[in-house]
Amino acid sequence: MGGQNIRTKDANMSLKTISVNKSFGGQIKRYAHHANTLDCDMRFAIYLPPQAANGQKVPVLYWLSGLTCTEENFMHKAGAARVASALGIAIVAPDTSPRGTDIADDDGYDLGQGAGFYVNALQPPWNRHYHMYDYVLNELPQLIEATFPVNDKRSISGHSMGGHGALVLALRNPARFQSASAFSPISNPVNCPWGQKAFTAYLGEDKAAWADYDASLLMQKATQFVPTLVDQGDADEFLETQLKPEMLEAAARTNTYPLELNRREGYDHSYYFIASFIEDHLLFHARHLTL
Amino acid sequence: MGGQNIRTKDANMSLKTISVNKSFGGQIKRYAHHANTLDCDMRFAIYLPPQAANGQKVPVLYWLSGLTCTEENFMHKAGAARVASALGIAIVAPDTSPRGTDIADDDGYDLGQGAGFYVNALQPPWNRHYHMYDYVLNELPQLIEATFPVNDKRSISGHSMGGHGALVLALRNPARFQSASAFSPISNPVNCPWGQKAFTAYLGEDKAAWADYDASLLMQKATQFVPTLVDQGDADEFLETQLKPEMLEAAARTNTYPLELNRREGYDHSYYFIASFIEDHLLFHARHLTL
Repeated sequence: MGGQNIRTKDANMSLKTISVNKSFGGQIKRYAHHANTLDCDMRFAIYLPPQAANGQKVPVLYWLSGLTCTEENFMHKAGAARVASALGIAIVAPDTSPRGTDIADDDGYDLGQGAGFYVNALQPPWNRHYHMYDYVLNELPQLIEATFPVNDKRSISGHSMGGHGALVLALRNPARFQSASAFSPISNPVNCPWGQKAFTAYLGEDKAAWADYDASLLMQKATQFVPTLVDQGDADEFLETQLKPEMLEAAARTNTYPLELNRREGYDHSYYFIASFIEDHLLFHARHLTL
Repeated sequence: MGGQNIRTKDANMSLKTISVNKSFGGQIKRYAHHANTLDCDMRFAIYLPPQAANGQKVPVLYWLSGLTCTEENFMHKAGAARVASALGIAIVAPDTSPRGTDIADDDGYDLGQGAGFYVNALQPPWNRHYHMYDYVLNELPQLIEATFPVNDKRSISGHSMGGHGALVLALRNPARFQSASAFSPISNPVNCPWGQKAFTAYLGEDKAAWADYDASLLMQKATQFVPTLVDQGDADEFLETQLKPEMLEAAARTNTYPLELNRREGYDHSYYFIASFIEDHLLFHARHLTL
């Protein structure tokens, strides 16, 4: 099944198929391609609902995964294809960082490969390849929209580090996304160990650069609003030290930002939590994507 | 979360909790215990629907996984908890073999650890620990029924090697199971490479012993019937060489056995196939479990 090359309208964009699996009447496909923004090969997965095979152009939900994940975890574990199939929404899930033996890395699970934090790195050695913000904002949607039967309606969601990425991308680019959502996002990374470690490495000691990547700081001063849904388990092992949803709630309150944040009793940080509420998030995005 | 010990009514049965995750209002729990039948430690996962926490005794679906799987794969990838939660059914998924550094193994993925084939091995070195047939038929349900709020209604399902196991267990013990189902089962193992390799190693060269573990041979001569549902993808890469559903269909036709076998266009051997049709299987079992 793998190996066939797809030439897109842009001759520079060449996709190599890694796998194709039928799922709920549609297809889950994984691809590798050379990402100019990252200056290395990159992988992503896409769920194409059955409507996309019937000549219809479907809207796209971008999903950003959390620490240590690849493009596969969400497709395997979230149970999203069932709902996306019914609603006629494509889902695109990129890998969480540039990867390769010649790409900068770190021994920690929370820095380097698998931990791109959806920023454009400013500091060596990271600034050579770690430009996940630009990749997800520009190159990836351009590639998707040039290659697959999708329209230009986009929403964005993610989990943990990816929830942080989804909120930041939507807050800084409100015209690009119809809606945003997150599960257990790192809501105030400038004030938690994961964020401080990553931002120090990727962005440097000058905290002025950090504010561009902090959802709570951005939400407090946003002037254009993107409808936003957040779910957070109250048994999440990272709730108090790393996630700090109360900072996001406070920012939304200050700025009357359209944030719905649900705390879910007994749920933890795992994909079992995501699977339990992914239908709510897809229905939320569908309302905004199909307006 | 791990580490607490649960003493069951039988003092010999001691469960060690590996993990607990809330899922669709219920809980996915993983346990280790000393399995007398296997004479080693064994792992299983159980999904307990919310009804089980409300004083209700729920029926149980046993799920047998395929080659290389552990007790985790089904819970991660099948999307079954959503439906089991709505229907009030517990699901128990054991590991696919005894495991450990002192347990016999083989370099192949299709023999030894992760490949117990749900038989009672007769040949050394396998006959020391590989008694998965007895474990799944007797010790595991006794442990489940002594420990959790479940009733004595049982059904059984599985995938590939586990589909073979589910069909064989139901065919040989029709009074023990209300219903049986399988995805992509190894339907006629005495006539395929996977089955021949495993049965030669576990059961020996004498093929008389093999017939007790071949669903097509058993279905042909069954005198008591268990309602049975099978789904098979027609793009399954193992369809012709290993799975041979046509042998099961022929046996059912000969014996007017209540088999419904659906061929699904474009679906392969993966969990994406299982996830796409697991709701059908759970609804099928629920009809028989709640009679």
